Amino acid sequence: MIRIGIYGYGNLAKGVEMAVNAASDMELVAVFTRRDPATLKINSVDVPLVSTDNVLAWTDKIDVMVICGGSATDLPKQTPELAKYFNVVDSFDTHAKIPEHFENVNKSAKSSEKVAVISVGWDPGMFSINRMYSSAILPNGKDYTFWGKGVSQGHSDAVRRITGVLDAKQYTIPAESALATVRSGESPELSTREKHIRECFVVAEEGADLAQIEKEIVTMPNYFAEYNTKVHFITEEEMRKNHSGIPHGGFVIRSGRTGLNGENQHIIEYSLKLDSNPEFTASVLTAYARAAWRLYKKGEKGCMTAFDIAPKYLSEKSTEELIKIML
Amino acid sequence: MIRIGIYGYGNLAKGVEMAVNAASDMELVAVFTRRDPATLKINSVDVPLVSTDNVLAWTDKIDVMVICGGSATDLPKQTPELAKYFNVVDSFDTHAKIPEHFENVNKSAKSSEKVAVISVGWDPGMFSINRMYSSAILPNGKDYTFWGKGVSQGHSDAVRRITGVLDAKQYTIPAESALATVRSGESPELSTREKHIRECFVVAEEGADLAQIEKEIVTMPNYFAEYNTKVHFITEEEMRKNHSGIPHGGFVIRSGRTGLNGENQHIIEYSLKLDSNPEFTASVLTAYARAAWRLYKKGEKGCMTAFDIAPKYLSEKSTEELIKIML
Repeated sequence: MIRIGIYGYGNLAKGVEMAVNAASDMELVAVFTRRDPATLKINSVDVPLVSTDNVLAWTDKIDVMVICGGSATDLPKQTPELAKYFNVVDSFDTHAKIPEHFENVNKSAKSSEKVAVISVGWDPGMFSINRMYSSAILPNGKDYTFWGKGVSQGHSDAVRRITGVLDAKQYTIPAESALATVRSGESPELSTREKHIRECFVVAEEGADLAQIEKEIVTMPNYFAEYNTKVHFITEEEMRKNHSGIPHGGFVIRSGRTGLNGENQHIIEYSLKLDSNPEFTASVLTAYARAAWRLYKKGEKGCMTAFDIAPKYLSEKSTEELIKIML
Repeated sequence: MIRIGIYGYGNLAKGVEMAVNAASDMELVAVFTRRDPATLKINSVDVPLVSTDNVLAWTDKIDVMVICGGSATDLPKQTPELAKYFNVVDSFDTHAKIPEHFENVNKSAKSSEKVAVISVGWDPGMFSINRMYSSAILPNGKDYTFWGKGVSQGHSDAVRRITGVLDAKQYTIPAESALATVRSGESPELSTREKHIRECFVVAEEGADLAQIEKEIVTMPNYFAEYNTKVHFITEEEMRKNHSGIPHGGFVIRSGRTGLNGENQHIIEYSLKLDSNPEFTASVLTAYARAAWRLYKKGEKGCMTAFDIAPKYLSEKSTEELIKIML
């Protein structure tokens, strides 16, 4: 049994907890929280809830620590620090800062001779792998990533800050016309803006000026002004009933050509349609926690991404079984 | 430069030739043929065309041999034999016999201390990887593989053997209704027959009994009787103009659930739409030839499949570049 620790206890951590409890080769050993453990309850009633202050008492009891902090401020500190003592996995997703995060984590993990797997989830993670495999196979081509349909927390928050708005949820949606053009193999140049539309569901205060709210949304610079944006006013009850989930997903499409004169066109498409963004990300993290432990046992050390890890290490099944039933 | 040899010179080999010539880190060193080299011309005019009888004179001049024989009779002999002398890659695709092929190739490659990568292409190959990643991430789920729209050589041949048929092409097509059910997350039990329909384009002899030909096709046991089959009679010119390609493709869909009570559903879908089945397979083989060489240089030996190979080894790009632009 691989002994798993979970660091943090938000939505992502709860998803890891479920995935670890469902795996037959893993055991959840402890959950670490910055809050007072006495004030918190976790779903796994038999598992100790421990203050992060005491994490170093657990170095011999945990095979892999799954770090469930946020990318903005938590993970840049937590992952390099914890990699000094544990094999770790995180879902650091600030794309532009991954090289720097990699370096910091790699230093810790090399010196501790542990394995650290960073930036696994769906993007970065499964989408990255698909971009990479597809471009290696079809080097003469172009790839496109579309996000959605899914909830964007940042955009939802921006709408909530408008005067007269009680609650809001913003969905990022791939533009069907852009998807169709890419699938046809036309290889257009498309900006993020051309690829996506934005849809807002807004609960307004009674008597609020709806036209004014709508205008403030669709003209908001950076967030909405450059996009095709739709605004719907709904009741609090509709919000609770129809928009309480955290769905997400998206598409990675590579369009490439082969042939003596590039006469043959190929389209590779990978897509995700997720009811729960955090639970899916947690499922990816958990599979890579298994990989981290196996690679550590093989003598590997240092920081890795999904690019460095052979697919077989993610599966509970043996290589022989995988060849028989999945190859 | 990775020095590549190609063993055989059919459609698949011609695709490998193009892919190797397009790669900036590879050099095509020789093409081997069982035919008399004097009777054959290859597209790469400066590359020696050599009789397979003389292949052992090339052991020091080739880093990876890409074996382009057929799975029925060629590869079961060629791959274990050539793995005694070369790093090799093949596209062995008789799913049921892969474990046996693996054992035979592994014995040779272990004793020669070479790397042999077998069964890479799209199925087995890219489809296998997608089945594997998806099931490792969503263990509580079910996966579905659909083939097509694409040409089935065996079924086309079966139609051609009917009296009165001059030429025929058979397309395997995923059943839209089955695809829709799977994408909805319903997780039905579906046989290959329920998942696919068959469409035949037939050129008949002048004066042939078309009704009789159609009846013979749709009632043909094993090939068509159990399927929903459509038959179209066309002219020789239409056949040449509209049905001379070798397109293929398909879908791998995993539908899985997470949540304390399985309340959240996730759909992972991977699809291929290929103008040329052999050229795409060749592109996959070529990327894995790069991986075989890199793994050999790292000291690996023995037989491997796509499950054993980390994604990064397939790409021309460095790990740093991959992290920067694709993660």
